[in-house]
Amino acid sequence: MVKVGIVGGTGYTGVELLRLLVNHPDVELRVITSRSDAGTPVVEMFPNLRGHLDLCFSEPTLENLTQCDVVFYATPHGVAMADAGALLEKGVRIVDLGADFRIKDVPVWERWYGMTHTAPQLVAEAVYGLPEVNRTAIKNAQLIACPGCYPTSVQLGYMPLLEQGLVDNSRLIADTKSGVSGAGRKAAVSALLCETSESMKAYAVPGHRHLPEIHQGLVQMAKGEVGLTFVPHLTPMIRGIHATLYAILKTEVDLQALYEQRYQHEPFVDVMPAGSHPETRSVKGGNFCRIAIHRPQGGDTVVILSVIDNLVKGAAGQAVQNMNIMFGLEERAGLSVVALLP
Amino acid sequence: MVKVGIVGGTGYTGVELLRLLVNHPDVELRVITSRSDAGTPVVEMFPNLRGHLDLCFSEPTLENLTQCDVVFYATPHGVAMADAGALLEKGVRIVDLGADFRIKDVPVWERWYGMTHTAPQLVAEAVYGLPEVNRTAIKNAQLIACPGCYPTSVQLGYMPLLEQGLVDNSRLIADTKSGVSGAGRKAAVSALLCETSESMKAYAVPGHRHLPEIHQGLVQMAKGEVGLTFVPHLTPMIRGIHATLYAILKTEVDLQALYEQRYQHEPFVDVMPAGSHPETRSVKGGNFCRIAIHRPQGGDTVVILSVIDNLVKGAAGQAVQNMNIMFGLEERAGLSVVALLP
Amino acid sequence: MVKVGIVGGTGYTGVELLRLLVNHPDVELRVITSRSDAGTPVVEMFPNLRGHLDLCFSEPTLENLTQCDVVFYATPHGVAMADAGALLEKGVRIVDLGADFRIKDVPVWERWYGMTHTAPQLVAEAVYGLPEVNRTAIKNAQLIACPGCYPTSVQLGYMPLLEQGLVDNSRLIADTKSGVSGAGRKAAVSALLCETSESMKAYAVPGHRHLPEIHQGLVQMAKGEVGLTFVPHLTPMIRGIHATLYAILKTEVDLQALYEQRYQHEPFVDVMPAGSHPETRSVKGGNFCRIAIHRPQGGDTVVILSVIDNLVKGAAGQAVQNMNIMFGLEERAGLSVVALLP
Amino acid sequence: MVKVGIVGGTGYTGVELLRLLVNHPDVELRVITSRSDAGTPVVEMFPNLRGHLDLCFSEPTLENLTQCDVVFYATPHGVAMADAGALLEKGVRIVDLGADFRIKDVPVWERWYGMTHTAPQLVAEAVYGLPEVNRTAIKNAQLIACPGCYPTSVQLGYMPLLEQGLVDNSRLIADTKSGVSGAGRKAAVSALLCETSESMKAYAVPGHRHLPEIHQGLVQMAKGEVGLTFVPHLTPMIRGIHATLYAILKTEVDLQALYEQRYQHEPFVDVMPAGSHPETRSVKGGNFCRIAIHRPQGGDTVVILSVIDNLVKGAAGQAVQNMNIMFGLEERAGLSVVALLP
Repeated sequence: MVKVGIVGGTGYTGVELLRLLVNHPDVELRVITSRSDAGTPVVEMFPNLRGHLDLCFSEPTLENLTQCDVVFYATPHGVAMADAGALLEKGVRIVDLGADFRIKDVPVWERWYGMTHTAPQLVAEAVYGLPEVNRTAIKNAQLIACPGCYPTSVQLGYMPLLEQGLVDNSRLIADTKSGVSGAGRKAAVSALLCETSESMKAYAVPGHRHLPEIHQGLVQMAKGEVGLTFVPHLTPMIRGIHATLYAILKTEVDLQALYEQRYQHEPFVDVMPAGSHPETRSVKGGNFCRIAIHRPQGGDTVVILSVIDNLVKGAAGQAVQNMNIMFGLEERAGLSVVALLP
Repeated sequence: MVKVGIVGGTGYTGVELLRLLVNHPDVELRVITSRSDAGTPVVEMFPNLRGHLDLCFSEPTLENLTQCDVVFYATPHGVAMADAGALLEKGVRIVDLGADFRIKDVPVWERWYGMTHTAPQLVAEAVYGLPEVNRTAIKNAQLIACPGCYPTSVQLGYMPLLEQGLVDNSRLIADTKSGVSGAGRKAAVSALLCETSESMKAYAVPGHRHLPEIHQGLVQMAKGEVGLTFVPHLTPMIRGIHATLYAILKTEVDLQALYEQRYQHEPFVDVMPAGSHPETRSVKGGNFCRIAIHRPQGGDTVVILSVIDNLVKGAAGQAVQNMNIMFGLEERAGLSVVALLP
Repeated sequence: MVKVGIVGGTGYTGVELLRLLVNHPDVELRVITSRSDAGTPVVEMFPNLRGHLDLCFSEPTLENLTQCDVVFYATPHGVAMADAGALLEKGVRIVDLGADFRIKDVPVWERWYGMTHTAPQLVAEAVYGLPEVNRTAIKNAQLIACPGCYPTSVQLGYMPLLEQGLVDNSRLIADTKSGVSGAGRKAAVSALLCETSESMKAYAVPGHRHLPEIHQGLVQMAKGEVGLTFVPHLTPMIRGIHATLYAILKTEVDLQALYEQRYQHEPFVDVMPAGSHPETRSVKGGNFCRIAIHRPQGGDTVVILSVIDNLVKGAAGQAVQNMNIMFGLEERAGLSVVALLP
Repeated sequence: MVKVGIVGGTGYTGVELLRLLVNHPDVELRVITSRSDAGTPVVEMFPNLRGHLDLCFSEPTLENLTQCDVVFYATPHGVAMADAGALLEKGVRIVDLGADFRIKDVPVWERWYGMTHTAPQLVAEAVYGLPEVNRTAIKNAQLIACPGCYPTSVQLGYMPLLEQGLVDNSRLIADTKSGVSGAGRKAAVSALLCETSESMKAYAVPGHRHLPEIHQGLVQMAKGEVGLTFVPHLTPMIRGIHATLYAILKTEVDLQALYEQRYQHEPFVDVMPAGSHPETRSVKGGNFCRIAIHRPQGGDTVVILSVIDNLVKGAAGQAVQNMNIMFGLEERAGLSVVALLP
């Protein structure tokens, strides 16, 4: 059994980790920390876990966390980088669901996140935890930087095209739509039901923190510069990301076959039949990324539709998938949850 | 492995059975019928099952169904009663999620459901599948009448009070609120998003089909006549029932202790701590019924709050729980799904 | 033209007042205060008003407010009572949408609201602004205490029964359901979309601040003591209250005729045809209270269904109706908005 | 007073016309037809109109309709073209909210709508009712083809750019998101709350009927061919369209000034301040189109955000605006409704 700790168990990615891990056959949950709620049973905050979990929140001390084989950081940026060095030294592996180690270029990170990076020496060794790209490196990683939600949906959507050099890399457009849980479990007027339901809006069009992360991933796939316009939208639903990706084809190619081949051995990427329109609810609560490819009116504009659950494949599920790979477990272990439909 | 068939796999209780059964450790799914969709892969209709299930819909023939140890009927009333005799004769056990065998008084059934009962001789032998009442009888049952969604939430809420004769049985009020999935997956203007979201209404106040079923259950618990006012409401959400139950106490009693004791060995009834307000989302996708007990201002009016997921403990989950009991499996098997929160 | 000021223009009742008043034919909006946003155009906060309103928020100074004939307080409790004396002295009339002057028994108010009342001498002179009860007094009032949202729906629902002494006053049950806007425009985890949508729950069952207000109103109607169980629920929608009211009839009476007669001259109470089930969306954005009366199975339990928009008839609309009466305007002026359906 | 008739009063654009017209100062509603509901009071179907309207549905006979000065067709395509000739002959003017007269190229229309056009001779004389383009022609029109909802939001968004020839017309991308009311008030599984809420999807990516209409409009603005990729999405809300429009700039230009100038005299196009992100709820129930212009990272990709209420500026409101222009009324008459926020 892998002994697991979670730092920051009171947010949405935290409770989502708990939902997945309480039924994971190879995991023993040891520690869930929350400074402000230490001593409180987790189920007082998250009654959906009543009957599934007996733990209390505890202090995020080194002593508590070094009992674990792996610690998940479900925290805002800035927390994991403060702890990582000490834990790694003790041989505890880390899966950071936050942004601290995602971007290799530290000054770029510091510009977008508005703070000084306190563990720049760890950035290079951190493995970007997108299994479809880095599975081998993940196996031996001590420190995983779990991808953001938008970056997961966009990178998986563009990957086959960019790897094969089939499109004009300077004219990529990612029009993405996210449910409100992406904003986290924080008291904020902007995420109230009365502010977000029955409405749709774009936000952060001048620049969103996931832009440099996506850019870095696409550049790596394309082995060259890319020009990306990234427009996120807030959608009146709890969970789900729908990425609608546009690119201009340079060469004729059987796109359906290309995608099916690229992802044929991937347990959590589902290339849907030609002509499909994936719905976010088809992945609600599950770890799949479902993708469909279109060429409207047979023109040279490709439209890729890519959906994930932002809290699962976009966060907690992907983190568990990384852990499974790191510890040599069956990659699907604990992730066979079927999406809730309706 | 229990060989399982589902008749009527295209509705919401059908897909919910599939969601639970594809991960059930002791079940082999053999047959899913749909006359109109025979030959079609199930995942074309329900893409959430892609990667989990390979079956196609097939014709609801006796030949197909007699391969199974048990057949679930996820059909409108009238279907199960037409098939039941022939299947039972072949030794196939039946769990009917519809209403055909719920009410013991056949003329009452016929009046509320507006049709002639075609298998009245089976009504007496059918076991009402509320495990918290009939666990022993369920073990040996050949034919289970799975309770309706409202009846499950209301009966579990009132049970300890009525069994102990603590309240005025002539003045029970059940004010219940249901998500829209209770209306089924049928083309109907009244269940459109544009007709049901951002609105709340009572319906069927003069009389709802679940009234005689609840009445029958309460009478049995109370061992005497009961007077029940039952007012269902349509709530702008997909899943969930919230039953708010009122009764007038005749005797002083420690209600919290009474409920905890009554349900202490029940795997799927959760008596919450005193002062709680259960949310339907705490059971969304899970098989629990969560209950809290209040006495506002310390008066003699008891208020019971009882929540379930209408598609799980109110339908498919309860059906699986019945199957587990019938086949001597662990009662929780396949039902450890954690409710999706948020 | 009546010169109008609004104190606390940044909450939901504030913007709702603005929505109604910018199209009111007899009103000149002079002042909208917000200490923290003074100087900011109102439309920066509320873009729905772009093209309808040019005002900026200003400081809530006496100097600003004494330009007005009437000032609406759309503020949390405690604010209006601090200002009221000085304004009234200057001849400015006040319509308080908050709770400061609703309850005549000051110690009761202080117990439920957890603070000392700073203007107890004004409580007696304040008129409770339910036009269906106090229209005459409202005409000459200097200070109106606008009813709460739940109290409006419950009192209008019970009024004909209690005035005529037709029911057992000791056994009233009000099961009420409210949209989330009742929680106001405040940063609070409990009102996030991800915490409230796709879920239903009761809250404050042990005691809600609207209980003493409703109790006071019902006692006045009944001319005697009443026993009320009041259970509010949070419903996953923005606007709307659905009150489901139960009472035990003591005498045979034509309830439909009783209600129609009682409300025949009321411009904003709509007694629906017998057998109706009012939907909250039928009043979304409008000032009506729609009511239907049922006697399930012809028993002695009466079920009253009463719906309002909590922000309109339950707050801003009722406030405008009071102003119309106070200033001798047509009572419907500015309130002819049709509910938005769908 | 303009005497008005509505054919097809039972759909969402029908009830929306009623909502606007009952408060229109210069209109007398004479006829609302519905073959299947003739004789029924309109308020039985639409209780939000109780207290505002006394009419019954009547048969759509020529006799009934020729009492009117203008008839609105709120009908599926195919209905208006069958009646138009006879009505026009009698001098009754027509505003068709359906698609029959929107596309000038009849064979194109027939291909996309799958039927033979029965009044091709009227197509040329019909005026496309986008006031921002055709105000002068609308004044004298006998027959108005009211634009579709997507076409309104997309054309108003692109108009200044295309008229001035500032962008690469061959690479336009319109990623549009619509609420579910766009699907109409029809019994259809695909529009159930349980199928559409808590989910997001693209649809009709291979080709949507609004594509040729938008194309025709853009070609006219650009005075030359355009290449448009149009991807509509279904969003879990009742009302609202959010169009996110992409184009590649060919020339440096002050986009904010360009848009402000183009629309400075338009009563219902609101160019928001630089940096804005319009929300669909800011136009919910109102007739505005709100637009914001962005150039992410200062690149050559322009992103236009354009929001409307699909039932108002995208249908009924625009129809009333056309009527106002046709009859020489104040263009804003009856359209001063403030959007409902929250």
